[in-house]
Amino acid sequence: MALQMTRTDEEAQIRGLIDNWMKAARANDIAGIMAAYAPDIRSFDAIAQLQFKGIDAYRKHWQACMAMCPSPIFELHDLEIETGDGVAFGHYLLKCGATGEDGKEQTGWMRVTVCLRKTGGRWAVAHEHFSAPFDPESGKALLDLAP
Amino acid sequence: MALQMTRTDEEAQIRGLIDNWMKAARANDIAGIMAAYAPDIRSFDAIAQLQFKGIDAYRKHWQACMAMCPSPIFELHDLEIETGDGVAFGHYLLKCGATGEDGKEQTGWMRVTVCLRKTGGRWAVAHEHFSAPFDPESGKALLDLAP
Repeated sequence: MALQMTRTDEEAQIRGLIDNWMKAARANDIAGIMAAYAPDIRSFDAIAQLQFKGIDAYRKHWQACMAMCPSPIFELHDLEIETGDGVAFGHYLLKCGATGEDGKEQTGWMRVTVCLRKTGGRWAVAHEHFSAPFDPESGKALLDLAP
Repeated sequence: MALQMTRTDEEAQIRGLIDNWMKAARANDIAGIMAAYAPDIRSFDAIAQLQFKGIDAYRKHWQACMAMCPSPIFELHDLEIETGDGVAFGHYLLKCGATGEDGKEQTGWMRVTVCLRKTGGRWAVAHEHFSAPFDPESGKALLDLAP
């Protein structure tokens, strides 16, 4: 019996990890969100700071984000994953936002890259990059671009 | 004699690729810039569009950027690379900008992620993500954050 994982198996594991992370993010479940990350994660998030180094700094940022937006809308589109032996990456577009007090959804599109490492048989996100592009003329983030 | 590349060898190759790419970008050498990319690259750039699919679309974007800013300043900081078998990723901070008509440098900080694949013995960037974070209150890109 072959015990070695195929690339398809590895990709299925990573899709499962992203799926669990997404469910946790929608549910404002900080522990569930953090379960996807390696302790030494280096993250480039879409707002506030250039980078976050390590899981404790990133957890504080997630807590602040979730306090601002307790019931976020997250909708994943166009996910592609490439896996090697012990290292993988994925990228996708994320429709995200919240429901306003008038009951209307206010959403925009972000780009997300996840870079993963496998340690002790388990994949974890070692680097994450969220962003919106900006307009170089006005300096404004372009949140209303649709794919 | 061991012909197998070690992870250190692979990382050295990738650092060489990024170094060549950086020199080409500083020299406004479009062919040299594009030499780093896989034909099917999917790119999330810092400005203008959500994404660029394929090397032809990305070349046009680079040409437009270089027309706007023919003598760019690019300064790489804090590069970290992780390599697996056939797949690797790297991330760094990029001080970038240009020298104004008054002779003064106008620079800001970006974050960059590169995701690479090795095909036929050669590494190429299959996915690239450049961005600046933004301020969610003003919607403005935060270009003056320093690491």
